[in-house]
Amino acid sequence: MSKILPQNIEKLIHEFEKLPGIGPKSAQRLTFYLLKQPKEKLEAFSKAVGELKKNIFLCSQCQNLTETDPCPICKDNQRDSSIICVVEQPFDVIALEQTNEYKGKYHILHGAISPINNIGPEDLKIKELLTRIQKSNGEIKEVILATNPNLEGEATAMYIAKLIKPLNVKITRIARGLPVGGDLEYADEITLTNALKGRKEY
Amino acid sequence: MSKILPQNIEKLIHEFEKLPGIGPKSAQRLTFYLLKQPKEKLEAFSKAVGELKKNIFLCSQCQNLTETDPCPICKDNQRDSSIICVVEQPFDVIALEQTNEYKGKYHILHGAISPINNIGPEDLKIKELLTRIQKSNGEIKEVILATNPNLEGEATAMYIAKLIKPLNVKITRIARGLPVGGDLEYADEITLTNALKGRKEY
Repeated sequence: MSKILPQNIEKLIHEFEKLPGIGPKSAQRLTFYLLKQPKEKLEAFSKAVGELKKNIFLCSQCQNLTETDPCPICKDNQRDSSIICVVEQPFDVIALEQTNEYKGKYHILHGAISPINNIGPEDLKIKELLTRIQKSNGEIKEVILATNPNLEGEATAMYIAKLIKPLNVKITRIARGLPVGGDLEYADEITLTNALKGRKEY
Repeated sequence: MSKILPQNIEKLIHEFEKLPGIGPKSAQRLTFYLLKQPKEKLEAFSKAVGELKKNIFLCSQCQNLTETDPCPICKDNQRDSSIICVVEQPFDVIALEQTNEYKGKYHILHGAISPINNIGPEDLKIKELLTRIQKSNGEIKEVILATNPNLEGEATAMYIAKLIKPLNVKITRIARGLPVGGDLEYADEITLTNALKGRKEY
């Protein structure tokens, strides 16, 4: 760090640099942007950072981040309790909710099995999923495995599928194929293979 | 905003979204990254934001952001007071200092003339520059105009040059040409014209 700038400015640049995807230049730009904001806006931002974790815990049912237990989705009687969509992260829930298609419940794993990053099945909320299915006494009829379509996500889906097979629930995996707006020409072989395998009658 | 996430998380996502160059997805990603950090790290970040503007004012000489007046650069007797480099923003000073080439003083305008953004000469620290040159009683011998090589920067440089011409100081403009690692083939016409005009004997 240079000694040219006031300490408080250097400090915030340094804090921004720690965030993922923000390099030294972006950190500078963000800090100088904030310098031009009125004090109240800075305080609102500061407060939002400081209170981020306040009153936040995991829902005892779906393991999503929540401020009430059970969380709003688990509490919602309008939603279908017989179907559980298993995702890796809380923001996957937001993405799925935005489709307005899915009306079942969720289960959040908080990651995927990844030996490289030292994340094993015991680090994820897999045990909680098993207990949840067992305790439901047959109320849960289907488990959709909606982990990411990459190496870690596939491994996690396979691992979970094997575990819950004896529990007598239908296990499905989200469809793979070409994304909307995708170009056949530029699709990789695995995506194309999946798209062909998953073809449907027209 | 969705109603799925706890309020405190939504709030911080919303605060991040206000920053330049950070979209909804990045804001989510940053917030979830911070959620996984220990409380002390969050508090350090929160404090850095909240205290950003504390003890920061403009140097009475160069108008740079500082916590002491005069600022470290203006106070430094080792630096050449006869030459002033005029830049748009405080981070331009950092960029120039990192070259380790320039040993004169600076003057920060805090912007450039931009009619589209409603920024006129009176919004910049131009008057302060004039006063500074006049008060120096001939100590200031050269003014380097180092505003950005774009429309606003050129207009600002021209405006200042015209104003200080009667003050009997040498006025220079930073060189324009091809940047290091630049490709002749991809350079625009104006850059190439400047590179040709500014050619030097080999």
